[in-house]
Amino acid sequence: MDVSKQDFVVRDPEFRARVQGSFDRQGFMKLIGAEITGLEPGFCEIAIDHRPELTQQIGLFHGGVMGTLADTACGYAAYSLMAAQDSLLTVEYKLNIMGPGDGERLSVRANVVRAGARLTVCEGRLYIEKTGIEKECGLVTATMMRLPDTSDMPD
Amino acid sequence: MDVSKQDFVVRDPEFRARVQGSFDRQGFMKLIGAEITGLEPGFCEIAIDHRPELTQQIGLFHGGVMGTLADTACGYAAYSLMAAQDSLLTVEYKLNIMGPGDGERLSVRANVVRAGARLTVCEGRLYIEKTGIEKECGLVTATMMRLPDTSDMPD
Amino acid sequence: MDVSKQDFVVRDPEFRARVQGSFDRQGFMKLIGAEITGLEPGFCEIAIDHRPELTQQIGLFHGGVMGTLADTACGYAAYSLMAAQDSLLTVEYKLNIMGPGDGERLSVRANVVRAGARLTVCEGRLYIEKTGIEKECGLVTATMMRLPDTSDMPD
Amino acid sequence: MDVSKQDFVVRDPEFRARVQGSFDRQGFMKLIGAEITGLEPGFCEIAIDHRPELTQQIGLFHGGVMGTLADTACGYAAYSLMAAQDSLLTVEYKLNIMGPGDGERLSVRANVVRAGARLTVCEGRLYIEKTGIEKECGLVTATMMRLPDTSDMPD
Repeated sequence: MDVSKQDFVVRDPEFRARVQGSFDRQGFMKLIGAEITGLEPGFCEIAIDHRPELTQQIGLFHGGVMGTLADTACGYAAYSLMAAQDSLLTVEYKLNIMGPGDGERLSVRANVVRAGARLTVCEGRLYIEKTGIEKECGLVTATMMRLPDTSDMPD
Repeated sequence: MDVSKQDFVVRDPEFRARVQGSFDRQGFMKLIGAEITGLEPGFCEIAIDHRPELTQQIGLFHGGVMGTLADTACGYAAYSLMAAQDSLLTVEYKLNIMGPGDGERLSVRANVVRAGARLTVCEGRLYIEKTGIEKECGLVTATMMRLPDTSDMPD
Repeated sequence: MDVSKQDFVVRDPEFRARVQGSFDRQGFMKLIGAEITGLEPGFCEIAIDHRPELTQQIGLFHGGVMGTLADTACGYAAYSLMAAQDSLLTVEYKLNIMGPGDGERLSVRANVVRAGARLTVCEGRLYIEKTGIEKECGLVTATMMRLPDTSDMPD
Repeated sequence: MDVSKQDFVVRDPEFRARVQGSFDRQGFMKLIGAEITGLEPGFCEIAIDHRPELTQQIGLFHGGVMGTLADTACGYAAYSLMAAQDSLLTVEYKLNIMGPGDGERLSVRANVVRAGARLTVCEGRLYIEKTGIEKECGLVTATMMRLPDTSDMPD
């Protein structure tokens, strides 16, 4: 039997600069020190190094940092497929934390699973790196909404 | 018909100091400037004032800040009912963002819905305050796991 | 401080007949024997009696029955506020099962939390009744999408 | 860099018979006509043919049928890795519906993502087959809890 996978359509050939520009305008990404480490049509990876400012009560990566990276990576995976004049917003995301954020570096790799006219569904995996070994530590699914003809910049 | 609601049992009369102490050890709460503004058995409210460091690309509260507060408020609502020697971790949370984080102050009010022997289920609402008017802007549900006889402090 | 709650607008005064008619066209509701037991603007209750055909491996209500009722009650809570010419679809739902489906009757009470132009967010509680006592056994949140000018009937 | 994937441990070499036996005791699976069509350590596929009894208001597969198959496939993917004397329960699941259930056959393929001592996290994809072409129509993530030394049979 044939399985029909969705082919991703790149509506904006300048999507890399558009995504990076949007990311750079996020004050929260600067505060926490996250960076985009991978970007393809329908895919985004974001990573962050451990610092005491990013921890929960026993010194591991805070669940909120995991959620923030997960939401953001899903958002930009979706945004990579949108048109130059679109903006987007997060409808919802769910994060399953599968292991402690115990390591030097946290990263999220998010993929678009389905890009609809309005809604895009993404899935991502979170990885924690400790002494050179990476382990999956989280699973995220998210719904993003395209806002046609909406500025992605402040007023 | 009678509806049997779960009565909350306070296992640790010093729960307020225990919760606040755990919160104060979270480097991430200090970084973002969040504070506990309400705490009762099975309930926790956390709030934060708007700063450019907490924003997404057009200057509103970042969805990751919403998720962070939601996760943390659910966690401490659950932790308020636990014993002195318990720690806890987040199993999963889902955040529905119902409106933009457009305002001066963001808060989350989280309640325990069901406190089981191992797992506690919480629900919370997010509120954005703008010029003195508060609006619901998010809905969170979360599962927390009790870790019996586990230190809530760094090694 | 004032909290601004969303007022529900009833766009279709015949919403009760419209919801019941849509429900009655669902072959799956007939198969499982569910019925609408409460309906108000932004609210829907659906209940079902225990039968061996609705069980999991040890004879309790199957989690899929819980999820089905949860999805359907959220859907019709949302649909009660829509216009006569609208249809709707489920974008996503998450069910937290908080206790076993051990009883004679299962019901879900779902409320609209936020009715947007396109997306409606709902929350519901699941109750299991055993020997006249009801207990909360589940928590659902769902996102529904309005389909304007779309028939809710088969072609 | 090395990525450390979790190796699945098969604790019960008779897991196929144990899973199938548990499935066959589910009255709800018989009612809806579902069958296990694939089973490996950490993997389960369940499928069902279209019938008018499984539909929503316009004749497509009901979202509750999607959720039921998703929950059940995740459960048995997890259960395949458990010991002979274990039972399990669903803690939570979230279903993103990505396309209409418009076709002759619906199937779910679920994989264990992380098998912990107590909690197992699963992910599954839903597929709808229409005139020989399969399309992804849903995405599920679920948390299952192992119940050690608990009978999986009715009392």
